[in-house]
Formats: sequence, C-alpha cells, structure tokens
Amino acid sequence: MNMLKFVSSLGLVAVLASASAARADEGMWTFDNFPSAKVEATYGVKIDKAWLDRVQAASVRLSTGCSASLVSKEGLVLTNHHCVVDCAQALSTAKTDFVKDGFVIATRAEERKCPGMQAEVLTSITDLTDQINAATKGLSGAAFVKARNAAVAAAESAACAKDDKARCQVVSLYRGGQFKLYKYRKYADVRLAFAPEFATAFFGGDPDNFNFPRFNLDVAFVRLYEGGKPVKSPAHLTWRSTAPKLDEVTFVSGNPGGTDRMLTVSQLQTQRDLALPVSQLQRSELRGRLIQFSAESPEHKRIATDMLFGLENGFKVYFGRQFALNDPAFMGAKVSAETELRAKVAADPKLSATVGDPWGDIAKVQKVYADNYLRYRQLESAAGGGSDLYWHARELVRAAQERTKPSGERLPEFADARLPLMEKELLDDKPVHPELETLYLGFWLSKTREYLTADDPATKLILGKESPEGLAQRLVSGSKLGDPAVRKALWDGGLAAIQASDDPMIQFVLKTDAPAREIRKTWDAEVAGPTDAAAARVAAARFGVYGDAVYPDATFTLRLSYGKVAGWTYRGVTVPAFTTFAGLYERATGAEPFELAPRWIAAKDKLNPDTVFDFVTTNDIIGGNSGSPVINAKGEILGAAFDGNIHSLGGNYGYDGSINRTVVVSSAAATEALDKVYGQAALVKELTTK
Amino acid sequence: MNMLKFVSSLGLVAVLASASAARADEGMWTFDNFPSAKVEATYGVKIDKAWLDRVQAASVRLSTGCSASLVSKEGLVLTNHHCVVDCAQALSTAKTDFVKDGFVIATRAEERKCPGMQAEVLTSITDLTDQINAATKGLSGAAFVKARNAAVAAAESAACAKDDKARCQVVSLYRGGQFKLYKYRKYADVRLAFAPEFATAFFGGDPDNFNFPRFNLDVAFVRLYEGGKPVKSPAHLTWRSTAPKLDEVTFVSGNPGGTDRMLTVSQLQTQRDLALPVSQLQRSELRGRLIQFSAESPEHKRIATDMLFGLENGFKVYFGRQFALNDPAFMGAKVSAETELRAKVAADPKLSATVGDPWGDIAKVQKVYADNYLRYRQLESAAGGGSDLYWHARELVRAAQERTKPSGERLPEFADARLPLMEKELLDDKPVHPELETLYLGFWLSKTREYLTADDPATKLILGKESPEGLAQRLVSGSKLGDPAVRKALWDGGLAAIQASDDPMIQFVLKTDAPAREIRKTWDAEVAGPTDAAAARVAAARFGVYGDAVYPDATFTLRLSYGKVAGWTYRGVTVPAFTTFAGLYERATGAEPFELAPRWIAAKDKLNPDTVFDFVTTNDIIGGNSGSPVINAKGEILGAAFDGNIHSLGGNYGYDGSINRTVVVSSAAATEALDKVYGQAALVKELTTK
Repeated sequence: MNMLKFVSSLGLVAVLASASAARADEGMWTFDNFPSAKVEATYGVKIDKAWLDRVQAASVRLSTGCSASLVSKEGLVLTNHHCVVDCAQALSTAKTDFVKDGFVIATRAEERKCPGMQAEVLTSITDLTDQINAATKGLSGAAFVKARNAAVAAAESAACAKDDKARCQVVSLYRGGQFKLYKYRKYADVRLAFAPEFATAFFGGDPDNFNFPRFNLDVAFVRLYEGGKPVKSPAHLTWRSTAPKLDEVTFVSGNPGGTDRMLTVSQLQTQRDLALPVSQLQRSELRGRLIQFSAESPEHKRIATDMLFGLENGFKVYFGRQFALNDPAFMGAKVSAETELRAKVAADPKLSATVGDPWGDIAKVQKVYADNYLRYRQLESAAGGGSDLYWHARELVRAAQERTKPSGERLPEFADARLPLMEKELLDDKPVHPELETLYLGFWLSKTREYLTADDPATKLILGKESPEGLAQRLVSGSKLGDPAVRKALWDGGLAAIQASDDPMIQFVLKTDAPAREIRKTWDAEVAGPTDAAAARVAAARFGVYGDAVYPDATFTLRLSYGKVAGWTYRGVTVPAFTTFAGLYERATGAEPFELAPRWIAAKDKLNPDTVFDFVTTNDIIGGNSGSPVINAKGEILGAAFDGNIHSLGGNYGYDGSINRTVVVSSAAATEALDKVYGQAALVKELTTK
Repeated sequence: MNMLKFVSSLGLVAVLASASAARADEGMWTFDNFPSAKVEATYGVKIDKAWLDRVQAASVRLSTGCSASLVSKEGLVLTNHHCVVDCAQALSTAKTDFVKDGFVIATRAEERKCPGMQAEVLTSITDLTDQINAATKGLSGAAFVKARNAAVAAAESAACAKDDKARCQVVSLYRGGQFKLYKYRKYADVRLAFAPEFATAFFGGDPDNFNFPRFNLDVAFVRLYEGGKPVKSPAHLTWRSTAPKLDEVTFVSGNPGGTDRMLTVSQLQTQRDLALPVSQLQRSELRGRLIQFSAESPEHKRIATDMLFGLENGFKVYFGRQFALNDPAFMGAKVSAETELRAKVAADPKLSATVGDPWGDIAKVQKVYADNYLRYRQLESAAGGGSDLYWHARELVRAAQERTKPSGERLPEFADARLPLMEKELLDDKPVHPELETLYLGFWLSKTREYLTADDPATKLILGKESPEGLAQRLVSGSKLGDPAVRKALWDGGLAAIQASDDPMIQFVLKTDAPAREIRKTWDAEVAGPTDAAAARVAAARFGVYGDAVYPDATFTLRLSYGKVAGWTYRGVTVPAFTTFAGLYERATGAEPFELAPRWIAAKDKLNPDTVFDFVTTNDIIGGNSGSPVINAKGEILGAAFDGNIHSLGGNYGYDGSINRTVVVSSAAATEALDKVYGQAALVKELTTK
C-alpha cells in the first residue's frame, strides 16, 4: 500500500465524490432498481429481468461476511481464500496446518464442514416501508427504537415462521428511507472443498494488500450440503477459463458490507475526529501485540495467522478512510454536496415542509455521540476485544435473559427470527486458543481502564482488585465455554442454568453486564434512535431531489455494480489492467511474504507464464464484496473480486471512477492453477462442464 | 488519565487559548524577560534580579531531557525518578534490578555514574540576533539553511573554544525572532545517589499518568562529580521539609522541551491531519509489541520497563495533542487568534511592509511537507525505530564523513561545538539488549516498507531480498557496536576505519544512508528552511503588535513560570490541590500498577499519614520541565514538578489557567520517605543543613 501516494491522491477523489446522483460506473445497486438503461446507453449491453433473476439465483452470501457464487450444478461455490481462512484455521491442528499448506484434497468425501458458516441465496424482496413507518409514526428516541425493533421482529417472524430453510431479514435501505424484507434460502452445512496455501492466496502480504499489480490466487471453493449430500444447483453461473479483454464490460454481484456515503457532514466529522482515530489506535496496538505473539513460536504464528490477517486488513481499510476524511479537499466536496442538496430542498417548499432540518438534528446528536462514544465502545460494541469465550458468555447470558420476554421486546439481535443463526454460530465446534483468548481479553480490559479511567465505576466493577492481565488469565483458564457441549447445555438450560453456572466467564458477565446494557440503552435512545429518525428524512430529501437515480448505502445485502476491465493513470503513471503468472515469479524474493509455496516452485515450468493472474475493473465495490463473482454480459464468470486498489479506500465515502478499481483474480488463473499446480482434475471438470 | 473527560473538555481550553498576549499565570518566560511587575501586581511578591540570578545558578539541565536543581553545597541534585530511570536501567543486570527495587545505598561511595548523562548550569545569555540575521540576509531555501547553520556553528565554537568545561548553544527563540547564545557550565560525571522503586515513583502506572489525585514519589537524587569528587555548589536552593499551603505562590524553574503555540493554523492542520496520526499509529503498534514482549519473561519485562514507560508516556502526551487539535472549538480559537494578529498587522502599513505574508508562505510549504513527510520520517527523523546499535552506526558513519569538512559546512549536529556531548553519549558504556534491538529494528524496517511501499527504491535498497525480521536479526546478532571500545575505535579511526569495518550494522548504514541524506537535504531546503524564514517574520509581527508581553515557544532552555498552589473545578467537580500518604494506602489494590513496594508496606505505621504527598499548581509547564524545582518566593524548594494534569495536554498549543495544572511531588513527602521508608539519614541531613 502506497500511503504517501494515497494521502496525496485524495484531492482527485474529492472532485468526483461531490456528486449526489450517481455518475458513470458508480453505485452498488439493488436488483430491483438496477440502471439498465444507463448501462445500455454507456456500454451497449442489455441487462434484462431474466439476466438479473439468473444472476441473483446464483449469487451467494456467506454469513461470515463474504460473497460468493454457485459455479456448478452440484452445489459448488466460488469465493475468496480470505473468506475461508478462518474455516481452514478452525479445521487445522498443531500437526495439520491447512492455512499454511492449503486445503487440497483428492476426493469429495474429504470435504469438511466450516464451523459457523451459513450460505444464503436471496429468493425475494418485499417492500415494508409503509408498514414499518406506520409503527413508528410520531415517535422519537427510545420509543421510536422500541417500536421499530418490534415491527421488524414481527415482520421477520411472520415471513419465516413456517420455513426452517429460510432466513428473513428486514433491511433498512437509504438509512431508513426504505424498509424491505429480504428472504433467503439458507444452507447451514457448508464444506470446504479447496483452498490454496496462505502464501499463494496472500502473496505480498500486508505490504501488497490494496496494491496493484497483484499476484494472488485469492480463490477457494466450498460446497453446499443438505442431508449429508451436495445440493443440486441448476441455477449456477457459467465458468469461463479464458481471461477477459481490456474494456470488457463487467458486473459484480455481491454483498457490499457497508458504506457511509450518505452520512451528513457532522457525522463524518465525528468519525474523523473521534471514532476513527480511537479505533485505529486500539487496532494498531493490538496489531503490535499479535505480531509479537506470532514471533514467539511457530504454533503461536499458526494460531494467530487468520486474526492478524484480519486485523492488518482492517487497519489498512480504516487508515484509508481516516486519511480520506483528513483531506480538506475531500471533506470540502462532501460539504458542497450537502450544501447543494439542502439548497434544493429549501427551494421546494413542499419537500422542505416534509423533510424539516434533519442535518441540524443530526448535528445536535453529535455532542451526545462524543460524550458517550468511549463508554459505548468499550463496554458494549467492542467488549471482549475479540475473545470468543467472553463473547460466548455474553451471548449466553443475554439470550437467557432476553428469551424470557416476548420476541418484539427483546434486544433486536435476540428476536426469534435471529436465533437460528446465532445458535448455529454459537454451538458449532471451533477451536479456542487460551493464549490468544487471554491476549484479547487482557487487551480489552486494559484499554477499558485506559479510556474510561481507573476511577470509573464500570472499571472498578470489572476489575475489582485484579489487574487486566491477571483477570484475563483467571477467566480464560477457568472457563469451560470452549466446549460446545457446555455451551449447548447453557443455551438450552436458559436463565436457570446460567444463574447456576460456576463458569467464571459466565459469572463475570453476570456481574459486569449492567453498565454495558445501560450505555446500550442510552446509545439507542439518545444517539442511534434520533440519528436513524433524522436520516430517514435526509433520505426523503434525496428521493425528492434526485428521484431513483440514487442507490442506497451498502448494507451487506445483494447489489449489482457495473463497469469494465481498465487500468488507471495516476500522476502520469499508468497501471496496466492485467498481471500474469510470470510476474509472480519475478516478484518473489524467497522471504515472507514474498515467498512462493513449494507447489508453485515445483510447477513453474508446467504453467503458461502468460496466463492472466489478476486484473482490475472500474466496478464500485467495498468490503463484503469479497468473493463476489465478476461476470460479463453473458453471465459468464471471469473471476472473483478480492480487493480494491489503494485509491478505492476512500470509497467508503465516495467513488471516483477515474482511479477507484476492483481487483479480481481471474477464473483463467484459477483453472490453470487447479489443473497444473494442485492436480484438481475433478474440480476443473466440474467447473467446465456445461 | 481521563480521556473521555479530556475530549469533552477541549471547548473550555479553547476559550482561553485564543489569546496572543499572555494571560494570568501563562508563560514559560526567559530569565531576561520575566514579567516581574505583572507577578507583583497579581501576587504581591517581588522577584528581583538577585532572586533570578540565585535561582538560575541553582537550576540544572540534564542532557537526557530533564530539569533539576542543586539542593546541597556538595553537588546534590534533585530531579524526578523518571529522569533517572534509564540510568537505573543501565546500571542494572539480570541479577540486580535498580528499577524494580530502587537504588538505595548506604554510603556516598556507592554512588554510580549515569552513562550518557551530563548536567548543565546556565551561566550567561548573549544576544546574537543581528549577527545571525546578517549572515542569512536575502537568502532562502538551502542557501538560507546553510548560511544560518554556518553562522551558528561559528558562534558556538568561538564562545566555547577555550573552555572545555563549558557548553555553548545558539538558541532560536520566538521561532527565529531572536538568536541567543546560551553558555553552560557542564558536568559530565553525574552519579546516581538515590532512586525509589519504580512501583513507588510511578504508582498507578499508565492508567494514572497525567491524572490527579496522584500518589507518586517521583523523586531521585544525583550528584555532580569532577575529578572523582563531588563538586562544591554553594549556589543551591534551600530545602523545605514542610508542605506549602493552598494559594502559596509558586515558581517553576526548568527547561520546557518544546511547545507549538506559535505555529500557524496551516501548520497545526498538517500536524492534526498527517504528522500526529501517523506517529501515534506507529507508537501504538510499537507499544503493543513491547507489552507483549514484556509479558514473555521477567527478564524481558525488566529490560523493557524504561522503554515502555517512555513510549506510553509519549502516547498519552500525543493523544492529548491530537484530540486538542481535533476539537473544532480549539482550532477555531487558534484561527481567531491568527486572524486577529493578521488584521492588526494589516492595519499597520509599516509593520505590514516588513512582515509581508508569512502565513501564506507557510501555508504553501504545507503541501511540500505532506509530500515529503513519510519519507523524511521513515528514512531520517525516526530511522532505526529506537535501535541503539543502528543509531550508533549512523552517528559513527556520518561523523566520519562530516568531520572531513570544515565545521560550518557539516550537518549542524556534527559542528565542532556539538561533538563533545555526542562523543560522551556515544562512548559511555550502556548495556545493549539484542532482543529489544531486534524488535525495534524489525519494527522500523517493516513500517518503512509499509509506509513507503515494497516498490520504493529506498525500500528495495534497505531490504534487498530479506524480510524486515530476518534483516534485523542478522544485523543485530552480527554487530559488535554494543562494545564501547569498538565504538571508540571507529570514532577515533575516522572514515578509513569506518570504510574498513566489517561490522554488518556499519555496512548497512554505508549502503543505505544515501536516500536518507537525500530526503534530509530536500526537507531542509524545501520545508524546514522556508518555514524557519517565514516563522521569523511571524515573530516580527508578534513583537510589532504585542511588544514583549509574549514569551517564546519552549526550546529546552531555562524558563521561569509563576502561579500558585490550587486545585481546579471541572464540570462541577472540584479536585483538591493536595494528596496525602493516607491516600496512597487507600488506592493500593495489590495488583500492578497499584501495588505497593515492600518497603512501603513495612513502613506504613511509621509514616505520618497526613503528610502532603503530591500537589498541583497553576504553573505553565510542559515535557522537559520534569524534575524542575517548584519554589516559593523565598527561593525554598517545595517539591519537584513531575507531571501535568489531563487538561494540560493541549498545553502544547495553548494554556488555560482555569484547568491546566502542574503536578508536584512535595519535598515534605520526600523528606519523610527518605527518613522513614528508606533510612537515608545522611541524605536528609545534607538536604536540611542550611
């Protein structure tokens, strides 16, 4: 990652980020509002309903935060390696390291279930905007939040109650401008079928992350099972074994996790001045702890690989966001866009009367946000610091408490419709590493004391007379929650079992959860609630001014973006759109993370060096899109999106088609590697059989 | 430290920070421009030249970055424990830990030399403003820097050439508004006489740092030696064994290290948006690495204690600065102050003609600053990441190269007058810990690759085909520079010895120093030079508008601040000015860092629980003032300044007398503890003998 270039590049991004209606190639569009006419006018290709339906039916969401696609009629799913690395880590032991060595098997019988992973295919979208708005009409603050959550919980339960193979989610689009019910066909048995070595998937490591040229085989395959057998999947995409050409039109179908393009200027300022810096400083310290931890032994390195990858990836993402907002030109463009929108609203008396001044309302909330942020973060949103044992305990304790209430009155994550996935994630068997758990928990405890002070009543309640390190050690070493059977007994046993438990982690949560719940309540009533209510009026302003030429901020729901294969030019330097296998061998130094896996050293002479390895497109994507199929107008798979270029990191707040790029690993490279590096003839055959 | 409170408190600071002429109790005044009339008018005490001369003669600067004072006629010097912790660390071994256990000796013969430490007493100040300005008249950029550096080197050499017990420094005050020659009597043999346990000096640790109430015996004593004997020091301050009263007038005489109160708004923006965030993110990661390193073994903990303390202290200081600048109200006040100054200049045609538009000139430099900052930081200003071996190698290589040139043409740190202290610091014997060295060097190498990218020619030159970790390991394990005799041979041997050396660290610096020198040259010519030239004109504007009612930014030279003993009220909560020994015992939990040293547990019943331990005053201080004597109008020592409160952290940019406080450990507490906890009757007698 070239941070120097990035910092200086922001002015360019800002020029285009000011647009409030989408420009060329911009947008993460919902399938029910895709700008087909604009695409046809720009690129001369026709995207009709049949095309959209076909792509939607083959698009897969992974509950672990990624996107994917069905690529054979036997339930085979393409995604990124980095979307299954936690699975590979969970299936590994001190003796068998599927992260380092790859998950390369000879027969389908060796495919292994990924704990906690659920695959979901979107089957329908239903508009509930009027219904939800009616439930919250005239309400504000805590009452608004309560009524909305109850209406959402009821709608989700009603839609999915009779179908245990479905998952239903009410999605707030345009930040409360619309509410839609998304119904998915879910697959809870997802098995790992193929993963390359970490060194191959993530060649260049953190230094090359968000960089281009890149040389990464960031692909993996999983397979959907039901009743112990692969599912039938006639609605799959067609695999293409040859690389795309420059300027070929590309579509990315996937689930961008979240964007903040519609935040008001005052919200962006709070992110810039408070939330981003604090979270980055903590992330950075934890990164240092994990790096040193990894250096202590090969086993430490093995168990921390996945976490460190995720942490460093997050660090770079938020670094990009921070420095985008720190750039006065970038912020200036956001100010201009807001000023323009507000002026247009003001010029329309009818619209103005409906909308009021949500920007001012949100600005007022910012002080409350700042006053409560550190407490909310430390006690609630980032509690546990990544400790699975703590998180299990909190989920068990709260679930037991919440389930004594009617579904609509619970904290929303415990509503009936949400419980099946929570239960699966909680009870699936994943290894717990006590040394890492102690590190995370100790880190969180020490940062909580640091940010809230030693004199805060919550700090005193949490630590008592113990040190953060001593308490973490005691809780982790004494807890039995690493055993899924213990978790299941507590989950099934409800509040009585929880209260009777002598597990120190359960007792710790019982003792310390009150201030966390309290700040959550304050936050919902005084920050989130008022913000959501006002944001819906900002959305109404946008619809009023720009009509349907706007797309909603990303929400980890299915979206389609369009663009083409294209390099870019920045400060006079042109970056070509393609890399090849030959470039990989040139870049390798022999020292990590520029070290080739042994299979690749051995296969060098067998591979066609001109095979297109990775390429870039102008598609507008963001985190969560990882693993998304990149397809052409014929619906053929050209590869899997796995990254953005460095300029795309400000894309959380705005898109600049001249330099923002999606980075894709080509299906051509995957085919060649499966065949010649990994000897996966059966997989290749399955993929290439029409 | 209460970061939540601090973040929210900034609005209050900002209200007063806008003043351009000093307000009540504000200012780090030079002894030749002390506002005695204002002090007399405010507090009714008369500070005359005799008083100033006496205090100056007893005020000591430690070359390691601290302040101190002579407190007996036999060369005894009071400072903070945290000013000698690196000395205590250097004198310790795996078997004898003077940091953990304190340096508590029975006889003067056991006092031990602190490696690298030099004590300095200011003897004269001579104005050289006209002389230096004449040398740079009409010059800009690189030529300006070269001429100024040559004039400074010549003046320092001329003033000190015939006196090897003197140190001469040309100081730029008011950011180039004045140049003064400071001449010091130096003492190169400084011996540790007493230090308490780390747990006593730094009770409450990082969580309580910059907090109040505090319970810290952050005192230590060193003694000045010459010819193997303690120096005679008739000009010492009088020790007072009783605590001050509320509202007692206090003076702090010491060497504040640096402030940025006169930076222009565009400079502050660059600090806020680029320099502070990048340096804090790196500091935070290194902190994480050191914390984990310390957790690995008691020996790791021992050798990293001093470094971790310094790093966490720095983190908190810069955290305070970052969030001061992130506060729009605070920055708004800085904008108002600058607008007011510029308006007053504009209203005065003659002044306006002299001054021009330095604010605009400095604003233009900011883009160049931003474009070069990461490279300058990684390759030059923060090179080596804290590795002593790397730093030794670079100093040896550069000194050998620079000394082939005339003094005035060298990089300024290698001018003749600067060499004696450099030589002492380089050649004094200090332990080197290879594991820590490897950690620092590997960290720096990895961050350099991260921030400059793997494709930068400098990164390629530095790393070649090695990994950061592998290269660090190879250089540290192969280098003999930990041996002072080896360093001395290379220092004395000059360029020939350097070029013939097969030490891998020397060879590494020889191979990689070119891009560092290149960015240094660019930085001096295009950033530092133009900034300095323009800043002198900002200073002229201030003098023109406000006369001598302004004090210069801190420069680690002797300053005097005034104020009184006073608590403060913030958000309705009043913090009392004093703490007592009783409070220490109440706050102790038994868990680090709230654990009492065994001597204090044993002495509890002997101590007077009402003894004033720490107290706060309104004096305006900053880092570098650590160890400064806090004295009353009679010139009696009331204690040693060791900290600021949390509100004072924004003090780098502006002072708010209503909430900014200096934190002092009382001489009363020191006396009681020396007597009853440590059995130091001889020291007590020496201190209290008139």
